[in-house]
Amino acid sequence: MDKEYLRRAIALAEQNVRVGGGPFGAVIVKDGAIVGEGVNRVTATQDPTAHAEVVAIRAAGESLGTHDLSGCEIHASCEPCPMCWGAILWARMDRIFYAATQSDAAAAGFDDVNFYDELAKPAAQRRTPMVEALRDEGARPFAAWREFSGKVRY
Amino acid sequence: MDKEYLRRAIALAEQNVRVGGGPFGAVIVKDGAIVGEGVNRVTATQDPTAHAEVVAIRAAGESLGTHDLSGCEIHASCEPCPMCWGAILWARMDRIFYAATQSDAAAAGFDDVNFYDELAKPAAQRRTPMVEALRDEGARPFAAWREFSGKVRY
Repeated sequence: MDKEYLRRAIALAEQNVRVGGGPFGAVIVKDGAIVGEGVNRVTATQDPTAHAEVVAIRAAGESLGTHDLSGCEIHASCEPCPMCWGAILWARMDRIFYAATQSDAAAAGFDDVNFYDELAKPAAQRRTPMVEALRDEGARPFAAWREFSGKVRY
Repeated sequence: MDKEYLRRAIALAEQNVRVGGGPFGAVIVKDGAIVGEGVNRVTATQDPTAHAEVVAIRAAGESLGTHDLSGCEIHASCEPCPMCWGAILWARMDRIFYAATQSDAAAAGFDDVNFYDELAKPAAQRRTPMVEALRDEGARPFAAWREFSGKVRY
């Protein structure tokens, strides 16, 4: 690993606090070059999904012209939350480097640990209710997907 | 629950396949009105995070002018993946309605079940390696956050 990328993610996080953002940064690297960077922009952009990792992934997808970030590694100032961890897997990245831990984030008042704990529970016991309905009708989009010859898998 | 919103999410999903997108749709409702909608735009926008729920959350945040979607309910054509589930929790939504299940998505070739299975494993056993380093330096952004009087919590 190249610790300078992780140090850059930490520096981005620290700078972001000074401009009113959350204390998180991320740097995505492919073949020895930075292809995407991000800082937390949740409150700045009224976007609850704008965590540093998600912002960096979107930037990398745009700069590389593909949704497939295999061959990339992400360096995050803090251990990714469940949302960002999922985003990293969907992006097919090779490896995750992080500095602070989810418990460090919790100590600073963030919900990462709470959400990991929630995910470990059966769905019926989670605090945000999940209600299944119309499962038969919900099969229709998948039927259309199976039949569509022009589909691009991801 | 109002099944018409779920039916609309399913219809959006089905329509999206016909224009080359993934078979997923989502509708966010607050106080009896739709405040955000989304379809899967991963391949269309080279954005691996552009799942229907994330697109709908971003739209709702923009239309309501806030990152806090408490009081909102999301209706998804399919059970949210870990990324989208995390996004819904960060958005502080009240409830999740869904039609197809994660196993239905798996049967159509999507990785939702694989990712839920991965999340259930200890981090060291997951297929995407997670490497912690420089934890001491990673504490600096949180120290800056604690000291910054103008911070907006989320």
